[in-house]
Amino acid sequence: MAAKSFIDVSPESDFPIQNLPYGVFKPEPASPPRPGVAIGDFVLDLSEISSAGLFSGPLLNGSDCFNQPTLNKFMAMGRPAWKEARATIQKLLSESEPTLRDNASLRQEALIPMSKVEMLVPMTIGDYTDFFSSKHHAKNCGLIFRGPENAINLNWYYIPIAYHGRASSVVISGTDIVRPRGQGPPTPNSPSPYFGPSRKLDFELEMAAVVGPGNELGKPIDVNNASDHIFGLVLMNDWSARDIQGWEYVPLGPFLGKSFGTTISPWIVTLDALEPFACGVPEQDPPPLPYLAEKTSKNYDIQLEVQLKPAGQEPCVVAKSNFNHLYWTVTQQLAHHTINGCNLRPGDLLGTGTISGPEPDSVGCLLEKTWNGQKPLSLNGTSRTFLEDGDEVIITGVCKGNGYNVGFGTCSGKILPSI
Amino acid sequence: MAAKSFIDVSPESDFPIQNLPYGVFKPEPASPPRPGVAIGDFVLDLSEISSAGLFSGPLLNGSDCFNQPTLNKFMAMGRPAWKEARATIQKLLSESEPTLRDNASLRQEALIPMSKVEMLVPMTIGDYTDFFSSKHHAKNCGLIFRGPENAINLNWYYIPIAYHGRASSVVISGTDIVRPRGQGPPTPNSPSPYFGPSRKLDFELEMAAVVGPGNELGKPIDVNNASDHIFGLVLMNDWSARDIQGWEYVPLGPFLGKSFGTTISPWIVTLDALEPFACGVPEQDPPPLPYLAEKTSKNYDIQLEVQLKPAGQEPCVVAKSNFNHLYWTVTQQLAHHTINGCNLRPGDLLGTGTISGPEPDSVGCLLEKTWNGQKPLSLNGTSRTFLEDGDEVIITGVCKGNGYNVGFGTCSGKILPSI
Repeated sequence: MAAKSFIDVSPESDFPIQNLPYGVFKPEPASPPRPGVAIGDFVLDLSEISSAGLFSGPLLNGSDCFNQPTLNKFMAMGRPAWKEARATIQKLLSESEPTLRDNASLRQEALIPMSKVEMLVPMTIGDYTDFFSSKHHAKNCGLIFRGPENAINLNWYYIPIAYHGRASSVVISGTDIVRPRGQGPPTPNSPSPYFGPSRKLDFELEMAAVVGPGNELGKPIDVNNASDHIFGLVLMNDWSARDIQGWEYVPLGPFLGKSFGTTISPWIVTLDALEPFACGVPEQDPPPLPYLAEKTSKNYDIQLEVQLKPAGQEPCVVAKSNFNHLYWTVTQQLAHHTINGCNLRPGDLLGTGTISGPEPDSVGCLLEKTWNGQKPLSLNGTSRTFLEDGDEVIITGVCKGNGYNVGFGTCSGKILPSI
Repeated sequence: MAAKSFIDVSPESDFPIQNLPYGVFKPEPASPPRPGVAIGDFVLDLSEISSAGLFSGPLLNGSDCFNQPTLNKFMAMGRPAWKEARATIQKLLSESEPTLRDNASLRQEALIPMSKVEMLVPMTIGDYTDFFSSKHHAKNCGLIFRGPENAINLNWYYIPIAYHGRASSVVISGTDIVRPRGQGPPTPNSPSPYFGPSRKLDFELEMAAVVGPGNELGKPIDVNNASDHIFGLVLMNDWSARDIQGWEYVPLGPFLGKSFGTTISPWIVTLDALEPFACGVPEQDPPPLPYLAEKTSKNYDIQLEVQLKPAGQEPCVVAKSNFNHLYWTVTQQLAHHTINGCNLRPGDLLGTGTISGPEPDSVGCLLEKTWNGQKPLSLNGTSRTFLEDGDEVIITGVCKGNGYNVGFGTCSGKILPSI
């Protein structure tokens, strides 16, 4: 692997030549969207590289997959095409390769300062699913809502529990989130539900897998082939209105408590870039049923952090967690999702669920952090039980390599008042 | 309104000139899909009518909305365009209008025998939501799963309860359904869940609304404008694996118990065609919160029937219900869906939930009909608790007018064995 690019990349950058995550951007507000790759403080415009004929490998030569407004077509091509693209781009950006380095006019066209571009949701999301795969999160939620007798429901140990989410309201990092209105539960003083702006607005620290080729209806994906169907990972904030969710979710699950907005980070980091950071998984006891038993089970050592920035104040770190706390792996999630024959399509989004760790500082949402509002959180002099208008939530994620980082950029959003 | 077409339409047909439902079809296996309207035993090819310049009204003149492989673009144009199209098509098909009647070559191009065409899912479904709006169904499910103390959860009386469904596996009538595999709950004799083909495969008699223009994220739709966002209705079978659903659904709701397949009928009947069959709704007690309080609440008198046809046998009627049993109206469902700011897009599908009536013969699924398998159903000598391989389920729906019907055609599917 090329270790260094001709482009100067700070050792603290999320986007060295070892990363090369994919996104979709507009270089100017009026430009059509096109795919790009992050390199240091620049975006490499893949439509320009493709038009210049530089994707010359057998799978990508002549393909229009980078002359598209989304990455779905490239995602559908599968791992061999992804590997070919990665090799081509790494070579093109390496310090020893003159093709782009010494071509001033192509550099001018194809390398755009990241600060100037607008990032977009990089794929059409046919369906969005959210799992519930952190044991610590499942346990804390159970303790809060059901008490210690039955904190984790028995099915959780056998099933990567999940629900269908709302694809239409998945937005890109930086999009404001309007505080949702809705019904909250009756209280001892008020036997009818209340209605109004949510009183318990929360974030959820998650990551999400983006599906590659997927499968036909009726044809499940084997758990040991599942990684070939994962294009990469993004950061995700699954904003949640706990009062709305708490009142509506029995018996059919979360609905309006979640569907007002879900934020993802713009850069999809591929499993190839994450491979050096692969690590083991928590022990699964009871052992998974055969269709979920993997020959090799993998998590990734991705350090996650959530900052909360009240309006006009400095951000405070409110959670430090890690992707490696997931009990069910993303490959088990994907295999489970298709075992009934359900078809996944390129660009589908599979959220992990809130990634909480075992320590108090590693819980991934305010519901857990403030124990449903009972223990307010102190932030440089102000305090919070849940999010207030003007609050901004900033999620970051990074793998620490030897002298370089493979990072995800940021996943952020600010709360606007209800209208 | 034109009462009669120059095309012979039997009084028993679902598709007289009073109906004019929209679908998408291929005249030949290799043809590109295009929109059409059903008239008697024919399909009127709207791409031909449009190309002939016969949509001459101010909104549709020059539009390419009928030269599309789906109806999404037409759906997005809203009620004024829908009314203009309906008026144009009704005039064109009326017995007194010579334009099409006397143009043999245009008739040859534009009117295709329904028996020769292949029908497709008529829109790209961005998101599919399923409600739970029949009180009788909610009560029966509660009695079966939770017992009489708390058969209907308190929230049901305030909220049109719903969950997000799976859009990718919505299929058109006539598509075979492969019996899903999955986990079923532990039993007294077996403390671990079982795995295999579902042992409790069921149908659900539903209808679904197809969304028109929809709304931007953060901007709810007022309940009194909600009907302008409903393009029309279809029949729906929300196939359900009760054993998988029962084991997985706590606490996040139905997932793999439903996502293996959902069948819709191909013809979307517009609210304009249904208007003569509008009727009142069941009393809502407690009264709905203000955001759900409609100036006029409407159901439609649509007679629904489910037939079950075991392989090699004649079909038996197993349910007779009516759309007018819905407690929450489709306009309340739509307004509730957006009250938190969630955006609906053209072509989104909103299922009603199983439409059960108060009588034993009017329950809309086998779970209720056989009381979770405890009371087998007799079918001309064979019996059923749940669906067996080879069973075909055929749903029909019709409004009975004075000398004519406004019908939905059929929504059917056959169960294939697990692979």
